[in-house]
Amino acid sequence: MAESPAAIRFGITGCADIARKVARAIKLAPNATLYAIASRSIDKARKFAARNGLSGAVKIYGSYEQLLDDPCVDAVYMPLPTSLHLQWAVLAARKKKHLLLEKPTALDVGDLDRILEACESNGVQFMDGSMWLHHPRTAKLKDLIFDPKLFGQTDIIRSTSTMPGTQDFLESNIRVKPNLDALGALGAVGWYCIGAILWAKDYKLPTVVNALPDVIRNSEGVILSCSASFHWEPADKTVATIHCSFLSHTSMDLAMTGSNGSLHCNDYIIPYQENSASFDYASGATFVELHIGWNVKVEEVTVTSELPQEALMVQEFARNAENIRKFGNRPDSKWPDISRKTQLVSDAVKKSIDLGCKPVTVAK
Amino acid sequence: MAESPAAIRFGITGCADIARKVARAIKLAPNATLYAIASRSIDKARKFAARNGLSGAVKIYGSYEQLLDDPCVDAVYMPLPTSLHLQWAVLAARKKKHLLLEKPTALDVGDLDRILEACESNGVQFMDGSMWLHHPRTAKLKDLIFDPKLFGQTDIIRSTSTMPGTQDFLESNIRVKPNLDALGALGAVGWYCIGAILWAKDYKLPTVVNALPDVIRNSEGVILSCSASFHWEPADKTVATIHCSFLSHTSMDLAMTGSNGSLHCNDYIIPYQENSASFDYASGATFVELHIGWNVKVEEVTVTSELPQEALMVQEFARNAENIRKFGNRPDSKWPDISRKTQLVSDAVKKSIDLGCKPVTVAK
Repeated sequence: MAESPAAIRFGITGCADIARKVARAIKLAPNATLYAIASRSIDKARKFAARNGLSGAVKIYGSYEQLLDDPCVDAVYMPLPTSLHLQWAVLAARKKKHLLLEKPTALDVGDLDRILEACESNGVQFMDGSMWLHHPRTAKLKDLIFDPKLFGQTDIIRSTSTMPGTQDFLESNIRVKPNLDALGALGAVGWYCIGAILWAKDYKLPTVVNALPDVIRNSEGVILSCSASFHWEPADKTVATIHCSFLSHTSMDLAMTGSNGSLHCNDYIIPYQENSASFDYASGATFVELHIGWNVKVEEVTVTSELPQEALMVQEFARNAENIRKFGNRPDSKWPDISRKTQLVSDAVKKSIDLGCKPVTVAK
Repeated sequence: MAESPAAIRFGITGCADIARKVARAIKLAPNATLYAIASRSIDKARKFAARNGLSGAVKIYGSYEQLLDDPCVDAVYMPLPTSLHLQWAVLAARKKKHLLLEKPTALDVGDLDRILEACESNGVQFMDGSMWLHHPRTAKLKDLIFDPKLFGQTDIIRSTSTMPGTQDFLESNIRVKPNLDALGALGAVGWYCIGAILWAKDYKLPTVVNALPDVIRNSEGVILSCSASFHWEPADKTVATIHCSFLSHTSMDLAMTGSNGSLHCNDYIIPYQENSASFDYASGATFVELHIGWNVKVEEVTVTSELPQEALMVQEFARNAENIRKFGNRPDSKWPDISRKTQLVSDAVKKSIDLGCKPVTVAK
């Protein structure tokens, strides 16, 4: 995509695999340009640039600090291990860089609040890397579930995010190391499940979460697999369940039933294909005479997308950054609010697990 | 279907709506014939016969007892309210009638054991009315989930059975009346969810069940909606969740994820269509380069069925009855065992609900 003169200039701190996908997304987003990459080792950064065919114009730094000190960098995408977020995200904000932070955002909401305060006080945009929220299918799903006639009151939401960790992953990946990504599967993949439940409830926080007693940890205590149920105040009878795991076949199910409709989306985090995505949906279903079949055929709704969801995420983030630069806007509070609520619920699930699966009240 | 001379002669006690479907199934099954119907009122029985176009040869009785006293009746299909099962099912067994009993089988396992003992001591076949177990799709699903390579170890099973009760249903249907069907939604639709979980675990009983705190009861205390999680002994990390309700849009989801595969079946109790049924299935799924899509397309597996599942149920039941009559076989213990395990788990869910959603050990 040709670079617009007003494009937001991105730096990437860290050369994790996910950075390759976001580097491509930055290239695809019309209002963004990849300006610099940094690794703790300049060799690693050079290799990343070569492997990903980055233009020779992309600056290459051998330390995160150097990248953050470059005044031409407007925004930073930060795919570092979670335990490093607090230090580097706060520094990025202080250096007036808009911050696209990989999820999970922090080890707990206390750390996240320090990051968000740094962004707020420095007038920079914050957003976490939940790409699926930016797919047009997600907007279509939302239109549907908030249609009182077609869907009605939400009764049950079930969300999974599982992946089969290879032996190598389970032994040495940063996501199973207590000093790097202490939240394990709850952070790496459970973040999506929790985010999907909150999204489906229009970000109304549950009052209580309860981990189920199927927790599996590795020898260092990091969560490899867990489930939980979420409950709202007594007048709100929605029940939601999540299951996240490094030990199961790839799944990313979002299934919801309301008083008038139901839907199934089995690839909500990463669509099967890049340019179009679907979900199944039924409303007003009942049985034919004698109950020997259904009166409605489940509808497959397909939504096309001109840009992949990660490029739409970058575009939205860069749009916010542009609005701040051009019009002196305040950062959009929508994105930090979403991240904070997700972190609050994640903290409560973690606490419930640590307490032996006792019910835990969700903090505000 | 032309009646075979050896066809098992069925009587139906009770003219509930479901009896219409099973009357048709008896007509469709090649080894069964509808011989008699009974209602507490002979007028009601006559109307049922007329409405369903029953042959003039079908005997019509104004009491259940008269039908059970007819020596030509080999087998009884009994769609009575659950609270009447103990009395009439035991009497039917004593009268040497094979017993196809509508679910839930009894108010608790104590009552069911009395029914099963009566069947056992009188040498008659027992089966409950779970039709979906007899669909060839169910056999196909089972082949798949017990394939260690394609599916692997089962990690999570989620099952729902929900229907939107009309105002009339919620006010006056027998399924919401404490003196008729005291188990409410747990019995009427939760039976399927529990049955599906047990089926998926090859009838290995969970050790603990835990109702979730989203229970909704009516003013008379009957359960209208509830959820629960099931857990096995520590070495078995499967987690299963159920949700059953009279207050939600029609849903009957069975979703499972194993170490190597996953499947989704959204009409497992009553297929969308009568003659063929499908499910979605993936094995070995992972992401393509850069994680911008999946490496496998989910496969839709379709299974055709020459007879509807309820006719296959009648056929299997009549086959067991024939084997007893012709060859002096003992009744097949498979079917009472399935019912008893389902009832045991249902009892534990009920107890967990009654205890305020505390974990409950499943009895043996």
